[in-house]
Amino acid sequence: MAANEPVGDPFGALGDPNRRAIVELLSTEGRSVQELADALPISRPAVSRHLRLLKDAGLVIEEPQGTRRIYRLQDQGIEAVQAYLAQVWGEAVVRFRLTAENTKGSDGE
Amino acid sequence: MAANEPVGDPFGALGDPNRRAIVELLSTEGRSVQELADALPISRPAVSRHLRLLKDAGLVIEEPQGTRRIYRLQDQGIEAVQAYLAQVWGEAVVRFRLTAENTKGSDGE
Repeated sequence: MAANEPVGDPFGALGDPNRRAIVELLSTEGRSVQELADALPISRPAVSRHLRLLKDAGLVIEEPQGTRRIYRLQDQGIEAVQAYLAQVWGEAVVRFRLTAENTKGSDGE
Repeated sequence: MAANEPVGDPFGALGDPNRRAIVELLSTEGRSVQELADALPISRPAVSRHLRLLKDAGLVIEEPQGTRRIYRLQDQGIEAVQAYLAQVWGEAVVRFRLTAENTKGSDGE
């Protein structure tokens, strides 16, 4: 029934506000667990738990940097998301039109 | 902290295996609640509950067809997903390359 599932589920991973806040923070630069915890209203263990889920879903990677471990965004989970959406909704919808910002005006069809 | 959020959360909506099964069934044709329930190992009330979440997330629409109500896929939630992913991961990742099926061979940056 399900298809193109990565190790973890990127939809489930992004379905949590704290995990979305983490990826939003990582979109500007790689950060350590402590840096993420300092920027968020959740504990360091909670951040670690969320990071593990994000890693399993292919959305985040962990890189050693000296004595620290830095977390960065990874593309793999997004590609799995795109493949799934293309399969179910069709390729046209998934080809994101960055220029054609058509706001929905009609509900017809 | 969150940005580009539709009424409901499309990531949360797609983070459930039963709801993914529903959109997969709807990808071929519109169906009624009863038709969905017949095709799935869950009850009709459960299907209705999942459909409500999918509707709130802009992933499914409900259309009257004679005396029945037919559910179909809707693009709006997917566009919200694409806008969010483009904002966080960058536009390049979201532009889905349907021809370039590069399987991941290396982990090097």
